[in-house]
Amino acid sequence: MSPQEARQRRLLALLAERDLAALIVTEAANVRYLTGYAGSNGIALIGTGGRVLLTDSRYAVAAPEQVRGAEVVIGMRDLLADVAARIGDVAGGGAIGVEAESLTLARHQRLTELLGGVVTEPTRGIVEGLRIIKDADEVAAMRRAAGVADRALATVLDEGIVGRTEREVAFALHAAMLDEGAQEPSFATIVASGPRAARPHHVPGSDVIPADTLVVIDLGAVADGYCSDMTRTVATGPLAPRLEEIYRVCLDAQEAAMAAARGGMSGAELDAVARARIAEGGYGDHFGHGLGHGVGMVIHERPGVRPESTDDLAAGMAITIEPGIYLEGEGGVRIEDLVVLTDDGSEVLSRSPKELRIVE
Amino acid sequence: MSPQEARQRRLLALLAERDLAALIVTEAANVRYLTGYAGSNGIALIGTGGRVLLTDSRYAVAAPEQVRGAEVVIGMRDLLADVAARIGDVAGGGAIGVEAESLTLARHQRLTELLGGVVTEPTRGIVEGLRIIKDADEVAAMRRAAGVADRALATVLDEGIVGRTEREVAFALHAAMLDEGAQEPSFATIVASGPRAARPHHVPGSDVIPADTLVVIDLGAVADGYCSDMTRTVATGPLAPRLEEIYRVCLDAQEAAMAAARGGMSGAELDAVARARIAEGGYGDHFGHGLGHGVGMVIHERPGVRPESTDDLAAGMAITIEPGIYLEGEGGVRIEDLVVLTDDGSEVLSRSPKELRIVE
Repeated sequence: MSPQEARQRRLLALLAERDLAALIVTEAANVRYLTGYAGSNGIALIGTGGRVLLTDSRYAVAAPEQVRGAEVVIGMRDLLADVAARIGDVAGGGAIGVEAESLTLARHQRLTELLGGVVTEPTRGIVEGLRIIKDADEVAAMRRAAGVADRALATVLDEGIVGRTEREVAFALHAAMLDEGAQEPSFATIVASGPRAARPHHVPGSDVIPADTLVVIDLGAVADGYCSDMTRTVATGPLAPRLEEIYRVCLDAQEAAMAAARGGMSGAELDAVARARIAEGGYGDHFGHGLGHGVGMVIHERPGVRPESTDDLAAGMAITIEPGIYLEGEGGVRIEDLVVLTDDGSEVLSRSPKELRIVE
Repeated sequence: MSPQEARQRRLLALLAERDLAALIVTEAANVRYLTGYAGSNGIALIGTGGRVLLTDSRYAVAAPEQVRGAEVVIGMRDLLADVAARIGDVAGGGAIGVEAESLTLARHQRLTELLGGVVTEPTRGIVEGLRIIKDADEVAAMRRAAGVADRALATVLDEGIVGRTEREVAFALHAAMLDEGAQEPSFATIVASGPRAARPHHVPGSDVIPADTLVVIDLGAVADGYCSDMTRTVATGPLAPRLEEIYRVCLDAQEAAMAAARGGMSGAELDAVARARIAEGGYGDHFGHGLGHGVGMVIHERPGVRPESTDDLAAGMAITIEPGIYLEGEGGVRIEDLVVLTDDGSEVLSRSPKELRIVE
């Protein structure tokens, strides 16, 4: 049985628990996860009466090559009329769920009209709940994606970064990831130097990277549809004592969280491990984001690893561990690994070294 | 007045026509268009009582630097509670619209709960209707984006493509666009050679580009938030007569449509110009997609330029003109330019040559 068929069966079991006979799957990553369809316009109908992947004529050749365990139906560009035509059979007359988190209000209105009064039930997070635990094929893809980013970072740091613009270095990382076989970066690469390193989501621009400061580099690759995510912070020469200190405190917090991470704890508990270390180090007010997040086909997915998260962590989940300390006007540090949790620890997918490195 | 403020005023006039006092703007491109906010989590509230850009603490530094003509409010990650808290003032007690094409069913349900029974009116395409006509700043950005793609294509073709994999050439184009100053490609670059050129949305892989065939290259860049889009088809040596013929027919159709394009005609009429030429050439059954589409902050936006489009074309619209002929198992051709319509013709933004070029 293909991984896709196994996932469809797990979904049908979850639907049965909710007294649903079928789900109209509109979230692109969920469609790909369940069927293998990797194009830009697909809807999956998964039900007790059948499994159908709807797409349009642009994918008439590609879709049958990608899809496993579902009938491929080529419909009109707006697939909703085709959904309405097929969903009755797929649901076998039973209750039909829709994905409320991806279906827009406009498309829901139109679907309801097309179904002529048949009521659909809004659902949340059913397929996402399956995706949260990665199977072996998924972990292998993420391992490849993480390796791509490791090699790209090593290549670009070896070329030196001082005197280049942040954008040049970000572009070099981007190109290096492509050279290493990434399909694309999993998000826009961040290179933030000097005072700009105090901005967690800085967009690299034409600022030249100066000597004797910290540079935050946050990058990820997509391989076989799966994302990686990693941050390293390097020094461009001797550092002011405060910058040296925040690096030390951040690395200590990151390593404490890495040592603690395992299935069976909660996302909030893991966040607290790092947050307590940073507070003990005197920088509790300067870590203004969560410790991490799930990663998979999407760069930010469940579980949440932050103070307010209600997610529990379990073996098979892939998460980032990325504390940061940001001093406005001065500089910043963030150190991030991507790990897959096990029952007694984790497998670390990002392998770049973390001791403070001077790169000129 | 900044372009953003001018756009907000035009929006308020459109809202008044619909008896709406405010719009909750959730579509990311619309938010950026109206306020300048370029991050990943923003909602704009535009109303007679005020203009507010809501984002979260990750953008506390960047958002005020980007936003024009609106108060920046830093809220919680799920911005809907902040929307509910502020929208009453922004609407001054009047009717509130939501963007039905971007608001999900789940978020609409939650917003309705937070508003405690205040009914919001689903709207479609109001801001998109403004974005369809580009102002001078927008055309300048698209001209830059098109120039980036022109230079990247010239660079990579000069290196030769026969014997390289499609993926290598796609990566080289991607990297060359970054080198030329693109923020990112506007879509995943297509390089499709030999029989794969018959697939309009082929994903370049490890197939080696052969000699003596057609290679479809479809690429675009993003500059200052605006997209370009261009396709060229090159020969890798002497062609079989059918491939030479489809190139000639496609180019003839493309040039006929370029000559005809102007404000005042309909999208369907312009499509028909090229479609008739391809039918006359004997390949009417092998042009299975629309002639073109609008381009702007989003790579596919209004107007539609295809047989079933109901959009009229007008001066200031940016569209692609991209006929193709696809022979399954044999090969294919597509030739695409990006133009900005005027009242009596168009400005062509993509400048790469179109005569059949042999690239080895």
